[in-house]
Amino acid sequence: MPQPVPVTVSATLAADEALARRRSAGEAVVPLASGEIGLPVLPELRERLAGAAGLNAYGPVAGSPELRAAAAGYWRRRGLDADPDLVVSGPGSKPLLFALMLAVGGDVVIPVPSWVSYAAQAALAGGRAIPVATRPGEGGVPDPEALRAAVRSARARGRDPRSVVVTLPDNPTGTVASPGTVRELARAARELDLVVISDEIYCDLVFDPADRAVSPAVHAPERTVVTTGLTKNLGVGGWRTGVARLPDGPLGRDLHQRLVGVASQVWSSTAAPVQAAAAYAFAEPPEVLAHVAASRRLHATTTRAVAALFAATGAELTPVRATCYLYPDFEPLRARLADTHGVRDGAGIAALLAERHGVVLLPGSAFGEPDTSLRVRAATSRLYGEGDAERAAALTAPDPLRLPWIRDSLDRVKAALTDLVADRPPTRGELS
Amino acid sequence: MPQPVPVTVSATLAADEALARRRSAGEAVVPLASGEIGLPVLPELRERLAGAAGLNAYGPVAGSPELRAAAAGYWRRRGLDADPDLVVSGPGSKPLLFALMLAVGGDVVIPVPSWVSYAAQAALAGGRAIPVATRPGEGGVPDPEALRAAVRSARARGRDPRSVVVTLPDNPTGTVASPGTVRELARAARELDLVVISDEIYCDLVFDPADRAVSPAVHAPERTVVTTGLTKNLGVGGWRTGVARLPDGPLGRDLHQRLVGVASQVWSSTAAPVQAAAAYAFAEPPEVLAHVAASRRLHATTTRAVAALFAATGAELTPVRATCYLYPDFEPLRARLADTHGVRDGAGIAALLAERHGVVLLPGSAFGEPDTSLRVRAATSRLYGEGDAERAAALTAPDPLRLPWIRDSLDRVKAALTDLVADRPPTRGELS
Repeated sequence: MPQPVPVTVSATLAADEALARRRSAGEAVVPLASGEIGLPVLPELRERLAGAAGLNAYGPVAGSPELRAAAAGYWRRRGLDADPDLVVSGPGSKPLLFALMLAVGGDVVIPVPSWVSYAAQAALAGGRAIPVATRPGEGGVPDPEALRAAVRSARARGRDPRSVVVTLPDNPTGTVASPGTVRELARAARELDLVVISDEIYCDLVFDPADRAVSPAVHAPERTVVTTGLTKNLGVGGWRTGVARLPDGPLGRDLHQRLVGVASQVWSSTAAPVQAAAAYAFAEPPEVLAHVAASRRLHATTTRAVAALFAATGAELTPVRATCYLYPDFEPLRARLADTHGVRDGAGIAALLAERHGVVLLPGSAFGEPDTSLRVRAATSRLYGEGDAERAAALTAPDPLRLPWIRDSLDRVKAALTDLVADRPPTRGELS
Repeated sequence: MPQPVPVTVSATLAADEALARRRSAGEAVVPLASGEIGLPVLPELRERLAGAAGLNAYGPVAGSPELRAAAAGYWRRRGLDADPDLVVSGPGSKPLLFALMLAVGGDVVIPVPSWVSYAAQAALAGGRAIPVATRPGEGGVPDPEALRAAVRSARARGRDPRSVVVTLPDNPTGTVASPGTVRELARAARELDLVVISDEIYCDLVFDPADRAVSPAVHAPERTVVTTGLTKNLGVGGWRTGVARLPDGPLGRDLHQRLVGVASQVWSSTAAPVQAAAAYAFAEPPEVLAHVAASRRLHATTTRAVAALFAATGAELTPVRATCYLYPDFEPLRARLADTHGVRDGAGIAALLAERHGVVLLPGSAFGEPDTSLRVRAATSRLYGEGDAERAAALTAPDPLRLPWIRDSLDRVKAALTDLVADRPPTRGELS
């Protein structure tokens, strides 16, 4: 039987499951692969879901009026005008991004590096991903000049790019593109007649409150779709809930109709009890804001501590300003890694750290980098403990780095990195 | 900007939303369009969801081990061998069907008439639907002889059919294909090397327990994927939960891997609290079985009563054996409908009944019939009352047809049909 588009399991989800298997086999692991947020559900949010368990109707495809109004308010408080009639709910921002690619059609420009699923989704939606490099230290936004060249070249070759994805703040780099770069990107998208799909799922996880990411929706409001969800700020990825804000105007209204059409044929609606809880969360009562702020502080402290360990090895690392990710580049240590360990790529680094130290992270190749790249992505959001008690303690600790389980993970990362960049292989005695 | 594949909103979901608008405008309506089950959630099931509200991790893409084991047990109790490792959970059986079409690729044979979303999903998945008529009175399964001819002809024209969808029991007709037809279909699929996608979401809603639908998985176990969910038997469509059972053997294992790949890139996982509740439901403790049995009795009683009203008009109607649907054909009354009302198609019947009587149903054209067809589909699952109290009363009533709100709906349907098939237009006095 002929085979359709190849599909591989999402690298982060696959790493997650591999980790769970290692753990259940009794191995000690430091889980730095998946960005799943290992924190308990805010009790008030949990109660909203429980209280809505009797809701069994589909409701509107685009989401309940309460959820859409709350999401619109959420965006308005962040400086983006939003019309509840142009908000669409989905079972996660991931399916919304996929449905947008289906609704827009054509090929999709994506930044390099970028989240593991954009390119796979573009292929599943029948298009192709057109990778465009980001500017140094400004992950998530394709370099606007390179975007122009790539789109013109693609069109000259008969390809049909119709959208560009940006990630603000960025996964995998933990950086935030500058306001100037975002403005230039928006201008380029308008010149090239591209829809901008702005994945802002990390927008509440910018460490310094004075340091907000600017949405391209500010500069190209007529063509920018913004997506977000509760997976990162409130750690309820397993609930599967996201929202998209469609642009106002003819392009946006047409796209809204197409997106709702796709949603109606692919998923019908988002789980009704989850929608009820999400409506509460997007309204941002004080306890929700406090919980998000506490998680943000915890991510900032832990991510910066892990980043310092990587930076101390001599790897290149742009300071992390948001999310729970860091994206070091071991290029300055290429010769030493090859000499000492025979390691010549990110996959080699990841394999060495996992097999020898149980430190599990992802190679840059999972994010669209060349296989030869020595970049890796480390996510710190699974270091907060096992079980809700440890995790709740991490969330409220004045200095979470002193909690023994976090301290232990950091020590294990430090030891693993010391071994990785040693200028000779460790002796048997040093390893044990 | 060039346009991608056209997408229209699912006809049933669109009708549902139109109905909600009419209702909120204070109009009296008899909702026969959508097959959403208007019954309350079983209290024990609701409690399971509420109790699982703290589950916020993604868990495995294919679903929790508990859910997969429970679903496998569910199928084994229905005579189908099932391996939990070949079960895949999704946020509804709808997204599973779509993901299967993506995972299999190519064009998709669908029965005519059939559920509104198969053809739309095939197009979104990059293929085309190849419609094949069903045998009279045996909806849901393409006539095996016609299937052979259609697939051979499609291949001769360079098209690439790789799968055939069947619906057992059938929506929209409420019929169940005979065991002989299912066996022939399975044989034809093997000859033609087609994957069989067997949508068995109504399998618990066969009215007579002696009258079970036979799955093609019995006859073509190596190539049949079975999907189901809790939307119809337990009325929790708004929770969005479904499961797929992949075939054992090389084809099935390859398809399983591809399906999990698609799932990981499109939706990640099913809402974790919903999975916990679904694991409980698929294990079928006595209270679940009793609730399903009560709903089945209610559907049977109500659907047969509505069917009798349609049959009394002279419309052709195969006896309904399952689901909550009936699918009358007004062809014998074509001349009268044209003379009296100027009605020449199913859409005309639906418009007349809706506008003049508030009786909302769907024309056969929504299910792939020619526009000129005088078939319509009526769903009775929304007649059980407004709010949980009326609906719970309907579920336990010894004779639900005597409940005033159901009685009233039936009377309104009867009056509407009397008007429809009258041999002269009603006078003003008769209408008021």
